[in-house]
Parts: sequence; C-alpha cells; structure tokens
Amino acid sequence: MIRLNEHYAKLQASYLFVEIARRVADHAATNPARPLIKLGIGDVTRPLPPSVITAFHEGVEEQGNAANFRGYGPEQGYDFLREAIAKADFAARGCPISANDIFVSDGAKCDTGNFQELFAPDTRVAVPDPVYPVYVDTNVMAGRTGAAVDGRYEGLTYMEGTEANGFVPSPKDLGSQGAEVVYLCFPNNPTGATATKEQLAEWVDWANAQGSLILFDAAYEAFVTNPELPKSIYEIPGADRCAVEFRSFSKTAGFTGTRCAYTVVPSAIEIDGIKLRDMWNRRHSTKFNGVSYPVQKAAAAVYSPEGQKETGDLIAYYLENARIIRAAMEKVGYSCWGGENSPYVWVKTGESSWDTFDTLLKKADVVITPGSGFGRMGEGFIRISAFNDKERVEEAVERIITALS
Amino acid sequence: MIRLNEHYAKLQASYLFVEIARRVADHAATNPARPLIKLGIGDVTRPLPPSVITAFHEGVEEQGNAANFRGYGPEQGYDFLREAIAKADFAARGCPISANDIFVSDGAKCDTGNFQELFAPDTRVAVPDPVYPVYVDTNVMAGRTGAAVDGRYEGLTYMEGTEANGFVPSPKDLGSQGAEVVYLCFPNNPTGATATKEQLAEWVDWANAQGSLILFDAAYEAFVTNPELPKSIYEIPGADRCAVEFRSFSKTAGFTGTRCAYTVVPSAIEIDGIKLRDMWNRRHSTKFNGVSYPVQKAAAAVYSPEGQKETGDLIAYYLENARIIRAAMEKVGYSCWGGENSPYVWVKTGESSWDTFDTLLKKADVVITPGSGFGRMGEGFIRISAFNDKERVEEAVERIITALS
Repeated sequence: MIRLNEHYAKLQASYLFVEIARRVADHAATNPARPLIKLGIGDVTRPLPPSVITAFHEGVEEQGNAANFRGYGPEQGYDFLREAIAKADFAARGCPISANDIFVSDGAKCDTGNFQELFAPDTRVAVPDPVYPVYVDTNVMAGRTGAAVDGRYEGLTYMEGTEANGFVPSPKDLGSQGAEVVYLCFPNNPTGATATKEQLAEWVDWANAQGSLILFDAAYEAFVTNPELPKSIYEIPGADRCAVEFRSFSKTAGFTGTRCAYTVVPSAIEIDGIKLRDMWNRRHSTKFNGVSYPVQKAAAAVYSPEGQKETGDLIAYYLENARIIRAAMEKVGYSCWGGENSPYVWVKTGESSWDTFDTLLKKADVVITPGSGFGRMGEGFIRISAFNDKERVEEAVERIITALS
Repeated sequence: MIRLNEHYAKLQASYLFVEIARRVADHAATNPARPLIKLGIGDVTRPLPPSVITAFHEGVEEQGNAANFRGYGPEQGYDFLREAIAKADFAARGCPISANDIFVSDGAKCDTGNFQELFAPDTRVAVPDPVYPVYVDTNVMAGRTGAAVDGRYEGLTYMEGTEANGFVPSPKDLGSQGAEVVYLCFPNNPTGATATKEQLAEWVDWANAQGSLILFDAAYEAFVTNPELPKSIYEIPGADRCAVEFRSFSKTAGFTGTRCAYTVVPSAIEIDGIKLRDMWNRRHSTKFNGVSYPVQKAAAAVYSPEGQKETGDLIAYYLENARIIRAAMEKVGYSCWGGENSPYVWVKTGESSWDTFDTLLKKADVVITPGSGFGRMGEGFIRISAFNDKERVEEAVERIITALS
C-alpha cells in the first residue's frame, strides 16, 4: 500500500496568493468600474530587450536546420553562457568565481528549493521573517520541521527583520540555537532592504567560524545602483568558502516567462573532504537536463554591450517606478524601506496588512501584497511592487493618495 | 557544522558515460583515421520541424513587444498546450485524462527523478534491470536504499528483464517482497521492448489490488506504430487509479535541446483521502516555475495538422534507421530486440558488453552503449541507437558488418 511523504501534510495552504486572488475576483465582480492596477506579484511587464530577442530568434533558427541543430546540451549550461557570467558578474567585481562553479538552470525558485536536498535531514535551518515562502516550504517537505504553530514551523529558526535592524538580521538574531544552513536574500524580497558589505562580512565570518553555510539569494542584485553596496556575496573575502549564490535573469532582463537563472557553488567549499560543487553537480545532472538552447543564447545576449545598455534601461525604468511609489507613500505619511536598489517598497501602515489590502482594493482598485503573507514580522506592513508600466504606477499612486489621505 | 545528505555517498560513480567518453577520446587521439559514428547516446540529430520553428519564432516575437509579453505563466503549463495534449494524446485514444491532470515541465528526466519525493522515505521501490539510471539514483539520493553491492543497491527490488520474458517483467518478477512503487518504461530504454495491452493490464490489476503505484515512463511512445500496442498506460481500464505517466517532446519532436515534457497525474488517484494530483501540484508549484512560453508555443505546434505530419515523418525516419540496424545485426547472426516500435536495438552479442564496445570502437569507429551500463541483466548485450542521419547509420552498419563478420 503506497504511503505518502507525511511532511507535505504539515504545509499550510498557500493561502496568500489564493486569498489575494479570491478577494480580487470578488471585488472585480461587484465593482466593474475602473480597471484594477496590480502592484502585487513580483512579475515584470516590460518586453525582452531587442538584443535578447535577436539572439533568441537566432537560437531558434539554429534549431531548425541540421547543420546547427543542438540536442542535449551540458546539464550545467553552455560554456558560452557560463563564461560570460563568470566574467561580467564576478571577475569584473573581483570575485573569485570561475565558469566551472556556475550551474545554469531554469529558475532561482527551483534552485533555492532544490538545494536543501544536499543536506542531512536533521540539518538546523534558519530563515528570515519576513521570508520568501519557498525557503520554508521546501524544508517542510523535506521533513526538517515539525508542525506549524501560529504560522511558524517548529524546528525552524526565524531571524526577525524589524525596523530596529532595518530588516537585515545579523548572526546574533539566531539566538543560542545557531544554525547550520542560513538563507539570506539581498536586495530582500519582500522588504527591499539591502545589506552593506560590513553586514554581509559579519555573516561570512560567522559561517566560516561555525562551519555553516549561507544560501544567498541575489535574484534582485541588478537593482543595486549604489556603488557602495555589494551585488554578490563573493565581494566579501572568505564567502567563496561558505556561501552558495542564486541569481536569475527574471528580474535582470525580463525572463520571468522565458526562464533562465544560475547558481554559484564555489569549488572552494569543502565539507568532510567533499566538494559541495561536485555534490550539486551530481544532483543537477541526475535530476535536470539543461536549459533550452535558444533561451541560453538569449541570456548570453544580456552580456553584450547592447544587452547591458538595454537591461540597464529596463532596471532604471522599474527603479523610477519604485521611487515614485516610495515618494507617494512617504507623502501619505508612512515609513518606507526599499524602493532604492530594489523593485519593492515595504510600507509600514500601522494597521493589519489585510485591512490595508482591502482598503486599497476597494477604494483605489489597486492590488498590493499584505506583508503578513511573508511571515509574522510582516504584519502591519504591505509590499508594493514597481513591476508595472510607469503610466499605471503613476495612476496607482494617485489613487492610493486619494484613498488614504 | 554543516552535515551532508549521507545517501549521496552511496551513489556509484556515473561510470557508464564517463567511461565511454574516456575510451572514445583515447581512441580518437590515437586513430585519427575515419570519423567516428556515434550510435550511443539517445540524442536526436534531426532539426525541429518547420511548423514547430514557426511557432517558436512567433513565441519569441511576442516576448519582444509589450502588447503580447508574458511573464510568469501557470506552473502547470498554459491551457493551450495542456488542452492540446489532453485531446490528441489521450481523448483521441479513449483515455480518461483531462487537461487538469497534465503538468507541463522541462523534461521527463526531471519529472521521473522528482516524483519519488511524494512518497514515504521507506517506500518499497521496484525497478527493471536493465534500467534507465535516473529511477535508481534518485531513490538512492532520497535514502530508500542501502549500499551498492555488486552493482545493485540493497533494499531496491530489481525486476529482471530476460530473453525468456522478452524484457517485459511481470508482477511475478517482484518476488515475495512486492513493491509499493514500480517503475515501468515502454517502449523500453534500453531494450526497445514493448508491452502489450495484456501485459500492462496485468500490472494495472496488480497495482489496484495491492494499492501500489506505477510510474510509467512513455518517453518513447511516438515510436509505437503497431496499432495493437498501447501508447499510453491509460488505454488500460483502471490505470487512471494507479498510474502516473511521463511523456516528452524530446524524442517525439526533437526537443532534447529545446526542453519540454509533461507528466500525467490522474485526479482519480487517491491515497489516504489525498489526491496525488494535488500533492504533485503542490510540489510542482513550489519547486518549479513553468516552462518557457515560446517553448510551450513550439510544443503546441506539434499538435497542428502540419506538426503531426512533420513529426510523423521524423519518427518514420528514425524507425527506418532502426530497421536498417536491426537487419544488419541479424545478418551478422545476432538475436535482436526492439528496433520496431522503438528507436533502440538491443543486441545479444554473447560476449562482455565492454568487449563488444571496444571491438566496434577499434575496428569500426562506431560508438554504441554497452548493455551492462544499464544493469547486471544488460551484460552480454549492447544498445544501438537509431538517432543519427540515415547516411551515417548506413555507413555504420557496413563498418559493423565488416568488423564482426
């Protein structure tokens, strides 16, 4: 008699986006007046840049004729892409990362979700709160937690992001229980907070001292424009001995529907004499078969001079939206985080996140994300996404100001 | 101190293709005479069909302009593709499968590897021998086996494929230990064997009686041309209550480098009151973010009248290669399986698989796959793949006949 993985039963219903969809549908059914403006989900709206489209077409064309056709590619990604990544994203910033450490994949969500497979089932894991739910849910599925009590899973350590620490937890926030694996995300989803080099150095030194590992989600690094801020954790000395980094073309170049990302597992990380890179390589090549060749060709175009210019413009476009949103919310009188070096604005409304959600939905026909959906520490906050067309963002903030003033 | 998943240490080195590559490289370095002909790996060589290329380009073009741009799609795949699949691959053959049961993914390798996550860690698993290594390795990684002894993992049940059963094991081959999850693959990789409706019905009846689950890998179903043979396990009554089916566009339409596949989890499968479909949906949407939109658009073109004609021609092309290979090997005097309704020819050479490999490499400059690489029962056999250009296949068999005669 087949028996199921019992840990799935512990998972809380993915109530956040289901509940948002339900309330939006109800509202739309009874209030067919103004079109809704969605600043909720973190999905891009601008098309792929021209140089990326050109390369994408070329890749498709090659698949259509026998002379250039490519079947199975290397599971780790084509060298042309891995080398472009290593050069532009790491060597150019002085990071000791080689093409051999880079694993191209179809999404940072997949990689951040799958990476925990490499660790013992009773590994002590710490996550931030507020948190991107994938870090938590995948550890629940793997049996590293107990039941959910008041929205938190037993056995998982939650590092609290607060106004006091600017939503950047430090190793002190782990408490006495410590952790063997720590998930960090900067620029942060959902708070938009960024970590300084000093703050990341504290984490790197802690991890190297403890023999712990940092899983560093840098999916939003492209939004870092302040030259003082690190884009990669490998800008911190010693990080190549204790940190895995996740990157994505989703937000950098508009690939949310096109699918390409990569994970960096430095060869310098050794545990019990085993290179973590080789373990991930085994996992990646056993359970994955490489990214679509035309998609990899499109991703490589991001690193061409035109691609760099065009994606830079794309990022600037969304950052201007973020600036507009943050300025508006501050005008209403709210404290804000993010929206600089990040596409997300994190707003303290001082009332229940869902109440603010309902107010903005009903009075402004604007959809945002209630902060409590990202964890207990998100209660009293909302996340507003800059991923939309500028005209809609401008209209949305006008509506919000009217609704809340 | 970080601790690793200890089960990875049990994995045998993926010696098969590494060892093949080493011997091929050695040979090529010392014998730069004739170009090698590779009939080893199961990778297609013909380009994507014209109708698929046209749709692929259209999808790329849509991603390049704001009016049609698509960001995150449904993790399960777009309805246009799921509905085309449900209609053509299942409804047309009388199978009770709806679009809602279909999960589009980037590869059958990924899905056959990931599906075991849904089951208890001590689930009793049975695999065929010879076997596609992914079924085995992913269960080893998940801790469902003991150590490898003489090439077999303790705790795993191996169902032996032999000349006597035509490489189609039956539930009797499970022995007294039984199994809760059974992997089956027809047309088979590597033996090319096909299962009749009666043979599959025996499995379905067994699974429903035991409350066990069949993971049915039908990646090669497109090669079934005999109308008496089932293409899907859902052609067997009751299979929708006990079987998950894996399908791929890789071999059907040349997508090995383009990446699109799908898995069918019928809503009728319930375990302890939980729909297996809903569990897979949770896994799929937590750890996966959908297939590239232009790729899904390209896959949907396979179901257009032109796409059906063109992919039919593609399959016929490879099947003609398979016929040529099988005829040649029989001419040499060997017993063969497969090569009909399958792109693989399984040849009994009566000597060590690696000896035959070396002979063909050295005397014919042809690369095949030694059967022992697929398990103990593959010793004494070789697998020859029909995935190459017809001219090369013709030359390869001439060389093989000369070398072995």
